[in-house]
Order: sequence, then C-alpha cells, then structure tokens
Amino acid sequence: MRIESSALVTDLYQLTMLQGYHAAGMADTAVFEFFVRRLRPGRGFLIAAGLEPVLAFLEDLHFTADELDWLAGTGRFSGEFLATLASLRFTGDVHAMPEGTVFFPNEPILRVTAPISEAQFVETRLMNLLHVQTLIASKAARCVLAAPDRLLVDFGLRRAHGAEAGVLAARASYLAGFSGTSTVLAGRLFGIPLFGTMAHSFVEAHADETLAFEHFARAQPGNVVLLIDTYDTEAAAHKVVALAPRLAAAGIRIKGVRIDSGDLAEHARRVRGILDAGGLGDAIIFASGDLDEYALRDLLARHAPVDGFGVGTRVDTSSDVPYLDCAYKLQEYAGRARRKRSEGKATWPGRKQVYRIADDAGRMLRDVVTLEGDRQPGEPLIEPVMRNGRRLRPPATLDAIRARVRDNLARLPAPLAALQDGWEYPVQIAPALEALASEVDRSSAV
Amino acid sequence: MRIESSALVTDLYQLTMLQGYHAAGMADTAVFEFFVRRLRPGRGFLIAAGLEPVLAFLEDLHFTADELDWLAGTGRFSGEFLATLASLRFTGDVHAMPEGTVFFPNEPILRVTAPISEAQFVETRLMNLLHVQTLIASKAARCVLAAPDRLLVDFGLRRAHGAEAGVLAARASYLAGFSGTSTVLAGRLFGIPLFGTMAHSFVEAHADETLAFEHFARAQPGNVVLLIDTYDTEAAAHKVVALAPRLAAAGIRIKGVRIDSGDLAEHARRVRGILDAGGLGDAIIFASGDLDEYALRDLLARHAPVDGFGVGTRVDTSSDVPYLDCAYKLQEYAGRARRKRSEGKATWPGRKQVYRIADDAGRMLRDVVTLEGDRQPGEPLIEPVMRNGRRLRPPATLDAIRARVRDNLARLPAPLAALQDGWEYPVQIAPALEALASEVDRSSAV
Repeated sequence: MRIESSALVTDLYQLTMLQGYHAAGMADTAVFEFFVRRLRPGRGFLIAAGLEPVLAFLEDLHFTADELDWLAGTGRFSGEFLATLASLRFTGDVHAMPEGTVFFPNEPILRVTAPISEAQFVETRLMNLLHVQTLIASKAARCVLAAPDRLLVDFGLRRAHGAEAGVLAARASYLAGFSGTSTVLAGRLFGIPLFGTMAHSFVEAHADETLAFEHFARAQPGNVVLLIDTYDTEAAAHKVVALAPRLAAAGIRIKGVRIDSGDLAEHARRVRGILDAGGLGDAIIFASGDLDEYALRDLLARHAPVDGFGVGTRVDTSSDVPYLDCAYKLQEYAGRARRKRSEGKATWPGRKQVYRIADDAGRMLRDVVTLEGDRQPGEPLIEPVMRNGRRLRPPATLDAIRARVRDNLARLPAPLAALQDGWEYPVQIAPALEALASEVDRSSAV
Repeated sequence: MRIESSALVTDLYQLTMLQGYHAAGMADTAVFEFFVRRLRPGRGFLIAAGLEPVLAFLEDLHFTADELDWLAGTGRFSGEFLATLASLRFTGDVHAMPEGTVFFPNEPILRVTAPISEAQFVETRLMNLLHVQTLIASKAARCVLAAPDRLLVDFGLRRAHGAEAGVLAARASYLAGFSGTSTVLAGRLFGIPLFGTMAHSFVEAHADETLAFEHFARAQPGNVVLLIDTYDTEAAAHKVVALAPRLAAAGIRIKGVRIDSGDLAEHARRVRGILDAGGLGDAIIFASGDLDEYALRDLLARHAPVDGFGVGTRVDTSSDVPYLDCAYKLQEYAGRARRKRSEGKATWPGRKQVYRIADDAGRMLRDVVTLEGDRQPGEPLIEPVMRNGRRLRPPATLDAIRARVRDNLARLPAPLAALQDGWEYPVQIAPALEALASEVDRSSAV
C-alpha cells in the first residue's frame, strides 16, 4: 500500500465535513489561502517550497476502489456520499508564489479556488507538503548564506522524520542552494547530485585503518574521500599521505578526507598542514557533525580550511524551529469574503496579492499585502499556476527554482542576509484589505 | 513509485561501502547496535518504538529491477557488484527490546547480526524508522503522564514532516497511550481509532454559525462535536444550548464542543457553566491548540474542565527535542569486538544486554549494561526477535505494546514520572564491558 500518494493521508474531519457540505447541498466556490502567521526567533524570512509536489498531488487526487471499500466498512459514511468521493478530482484553480520566492508572515504563498469540497479536502496533505518543504528550504538557505562559497551536502536522511521527510528534505535543501544529497532516492526522483564518503564501520571492520582506506579507494577509484576520525584524526591523515603514492601508481587519486568529530576547525588546520606537506595539496577537506548555519559561520570566521560540509540532522529537522505556524484558511465562499476571529488567530479575508517594493539595485525594501485587483507599486508575487485542475505550464525545473532562490537571497535586506535576529522586514496591510476585513466583521450574521 | 518501501531510501555511502566490502572479499558476520548517546533537557527517559516496522522492512528488503537499472545508469557501480545487490536479502538475526520498553542512554534497543553487507546496508532506513517513532512515542508518553485520565488524540498530520511522518506519529503516540488519531490512513494501516470534529472553514462557509452546527449534526448524527471558537466562544456555546432541543427532537445528541484558541482553561470553565445550565451536562469539552505536556499539566493544575485534548504539532514534531542523538554502530566483525574512539563519540564494543533492577514494588531502580552472557541481577531487556531473516513470533499487536508502555510508565522512578528535569536515572556499565573496551583499545592494530 502506498503511503504518500494515498487519498487517506488526511484528517478524518475533512471527510466528515465533506459529508456535511454534501448533505447541506453546499457546492459553491471556496477560496482558501496558505500562509504563515508569524515567525519565531531564528527565522527572519522564509523560502516558499513545495509547490510542484502540491500541484502533482492535486493532479493525481483520487480515491481508489479499495480505499472507498475501507471507508464504507468504517460505517461512518453513507453510500451516497461515498459515491461522490469516488468521482472526487481536483478541478479548481491555484495561484501561488513560484517555488524559491522569499516570503514573510501574512503573505499567502498559495491560493486554492475550487468547489468547496475539493478545496476543503486537499487541506491536510497540501499543508503537510508545503509546510515541511518550506521549513527545510528556509533552514537550508540560512546555511547557504552562512557559507556561500562552500560545498554543502544534505546528510540528514537517517534522522529525518520518515522516508518522505528525508526525500523532501533533500529536495528542499537542494533548491535552497545545497550542492547535493546523500539520499539515493532523491537522486532518482529529482535528479539531485549524489554525494557520499564512507562510515566509521568500514574502517572498524578492517583490522588496519590504512587497509580500509586502500580497499575503499580501489573499489571507488573515482570518488576517494576517506573518513579519518575513527581513531586519531592526525595519525590517519599521515596514513593517507603514506598511502597516496601506492594508489597513484595504480592511477587512483585521493580526492579528499572527511572529519566528523572534535574541534573541526582545529583538526582541519592540522590535517591541511599534513596533506600539504605530504604532496596532497589538491585533496579537499570535508567536515560533518552537528552542523547548522551557526556552526558554519563559526567555522568560517575561524578560517577553518574546510572545502565542503555534510549538513544533516539540524537542517533536515529544522531543529531550532521544527515547525512553522502555518495555516490554510477559508477566505471566501460563494462570492462572499470570510474570516475567522478566533483570539490570536484572526485572518485577513478575501483573495490576496503581495507586492514587493525594491530599491534601484533590486534590494527588497518592503511588501504590501492587498486584495487581488488592488494594484500597488512594486512587483506582484502571486501568479496563476493551475486552472481547472491542469497546470498552466510544465513543472519548474529544480535548476530554475535554485536560480530564483539565488536571486532572492541576493536581494535580501542586509540584516536578513546577515542572519541578524530580531530585525523585522516591513509587511504592510493595504487599506483595501483593512476595509474588507471591517466590512466582513460588520456584515457577519453570526 | 513507492517512497517508503524503496531500497533506495538509503545513503549513497552504504552502496559505495558495499562495493568496497565486495571488492575486498569481506563477507563475515558483523554486529551493529542502535542506541542513543545522551538525552537532552526535557527527556529523562525514552520509549523504544519502531521495532515492528523495522522487522517488516528487513523481511521485505530487496532491489527491484528498475532500481538496479537506475543504479547501473549512474555509472558508479560495476555490473558484478550490482548482481550481488539483485540477490541482496536480509538473512540475519535481530535482538531487541520489545516495543514500548522504557530505555536510557548507552542501552542498545536493537542489535543486528548479519553478513556485513546486509548489516551495513540496512543502517539508514533502520535508523530513520526507529528514530522518529522513538522520538514521538517518548514525547507522547510525557503527555500521557501529564494528563493520565484524559482523552488524548493525535491531530498533528498537517505539520508532521511528510506523509510517513504523520502516519508513524499516529502509531507512536497511540502506542504511548493516546486514544486515537485524526489521520485516516493510520486507522486503515494500524487499526488505530479515528477521531475528528470540524474545522473553522465549515463554520465560516455558512452565513450563520447555528446553521453550520445544525448541518454538521444532521450529517454526522453519531459524532456531534461542534467547534465553537470561530467568532465568540461563549456566544457559540449559547447557540449550542439553543440548538440542542431541536436536534434532540430529531434524535440527535450533541456529544461535545471543541475550543481551539484563547485561554483554554478560562473558556472551558465558562463553556462548562453554559452547557450545564443549558441541560447539556453530558456534553464533553474538547480542547486543542499548541498543546504539549507542559500545557496539559498547566491546564490540569488549573482544574480546567476539559475532557479531551487534540494534541498536534508539538508532539508530531517533538518540537522541544526534534531529534535524538542516536547511532547504529559496529560492535563486532568476524568475531572480534570493535569500537570507534572519535572524540566525544566513542562507543562500547561487543554484543550487549541490559539488566533492569527494580524494588519489591516493581519500581525501576537502576540499569546495568553488560556483555551478552555476563549474567547480572535484574530483568534482561533484550531478546531475540528475528533469526535468519524471519521473525521468531507474529508481530506484536498495538494493544500489547500499549500495555507494555502502561506497565513501564507505572514503574518509572517518581522524578521521571513527574517529568522532573535534570534527574538522571542510573545506568551502570558492568566491569565485563569496561574490560572488553580496554582490551579492544589495547589490541587495535590501527
């Protein structure tokens, strides 16, 4: 049974609400928007990610016969209602910020316009997909800003929250600017470049560390990166130097070494010296172990001679901010704008657009959130991407998304680019939106 | 293409190491153990979870023809090596603590004994499965300890890290003692009881809140739990009271209400008063919104009249501790004990057993980690569960695992049961294990 493509990846209440809409004969057009309510310390901006997987989910949405049989067996749903589920497809429109766009609180990054049952039903999985990818891309982008000229590779699959989390983290970190991943399936699914070295177990399984290096090199002559911290890092670096001529005689070049423990800057400096003195000036040093944007910034500030970093758990779990305060909220039904006013969770009603105002050099100055159709200065960020359930253009390539992230990061205000905490980017609510909110509150017959 | 059951859910280096072992003719038996190195603040104990899914993964392990074709196309692997992958199955033994067992740092919860290629290859997915389920079960158990006599329901799918994360979080929180989940697929896959109410959008889509309640009740007469905080919580509670007689005339009973925002204790108290005064003394109050063990403890300490809680994001992401410092390490190869000595990451060598010493009432006093065969006082926690790639008994039922968790939680030392931070359970390393570690270090030819 497939997990990630099952229509049962949803909350029970979506189905009970659909049965309610059906029973009440409610089938008008609803408009929902996905946005983040507020940012927490450690995130001054976010990177919109997950749009292409969401569009694929919407295009493929359907219940299988055995899923419907199982639902019938729960006794919760009428046969008549289940017949409507059998023909449920997503036939609506989607507007969105392109993947890779920088965004801020209260700015919708995706809007669904569809018959209410469709727009309601897709909520859970749509949030599930957008949330995790935006979360990881935003964390990974911080690492890219902290170490812009180094090789960054996602190593996080083992502690990602499940298989799909690992695969999506590989995608999200790659589009944010990482150079690749160790997750093989992400290479297959998305064409992301794969990287890998060796584990301590390979060294330990050999009685002799040098022999382990030699076995590994001869089996992978094109990608010889040797892990040197299993016992004594500097001693192992000397063994690498001693081994190099023997491998060179067999036409094998040592591409580099990896350090995974201890004071990475200090070890890297010593190892660099040993390699350079031993004629391995071309060999790169790769480092890993508990890395995130703060550790990277510290290592670079200390001028650690590290060429590339394996970044794992802390990015793949977004460990300092492991979730976003995101929501997918009804903004309009049957042509009438809606909002909820729950304490601390009130939303802005209506179909929205976000305008971004930049200075002459293209650097972001401020955003304005307003209603669709209320033209404001600046660049509108939300565009139509799906109509009547069909994409308006082929899926964006990861290369194109990566280029957008690069461009967006280059245009960040200086305090955000410097990962300065506590600095808030100005997002204004336009008068037209304020006016609609008041009008909705006045006219509410609740 | 299936994600969660693909053999490509692995790190590239597993495959490159396997090619190395193959080229070097290394095929002896390896022993790996999975354990957690240390606990972070907010976790005084952990609940072992994920064993049954790991055993299912091991039983099913294989590469499909198209996966092998794709690997061949990468140009990284020899045809001869890929032929060995085509026949790769898991033929080894597994020893483990049963799912639902409380455990502590340095205590292996799972041991794999198999030809080195098999034992090595399974590392990534085995860690990926054990880590997330142990992580979530441990967080959920804390909620159960904080609110032992209340209904707790997992609502976290939308902000879980992907679809599999949500499904596994439903399983992990249920085995830890939750009463059910909103995740429909978890109901289908694991038979977990499903719960659900309604969303704000259902209320907002109606011009009138009372009409929304009535539509929902008539469509779901057996499960009428009404969400009352969309606009004004107490006003909505009065509407529920006013609606009740009309529904009762149709034979429909209002089971309860849900509050999702504001000061939950204060609202619950006022709503309880309104419901009781309105003849709805039987209606339950269900609360949700940013809940975790601390919020639950606070609400109960304030005597909030809440019967059940929807617990979502903070449990499904284990938000205060979003990952465990876990490892899967080689302990023995070809009959010789191994360890790594990397700074801050040294491991204990050999095949281990954990003994748990309890007082006369069964309350846990201390654990001893030692070598298999070194009999210690107390109860041994690790048992054989798979031999030659086949389970030794049918999968444990979730009911049985839930019973084990209940029993284990009841036997926790008082400071751990009270979620007291900074109190450390005593875990001793037996002399036999210390002696082996010294011997391994002395005899290492590295």
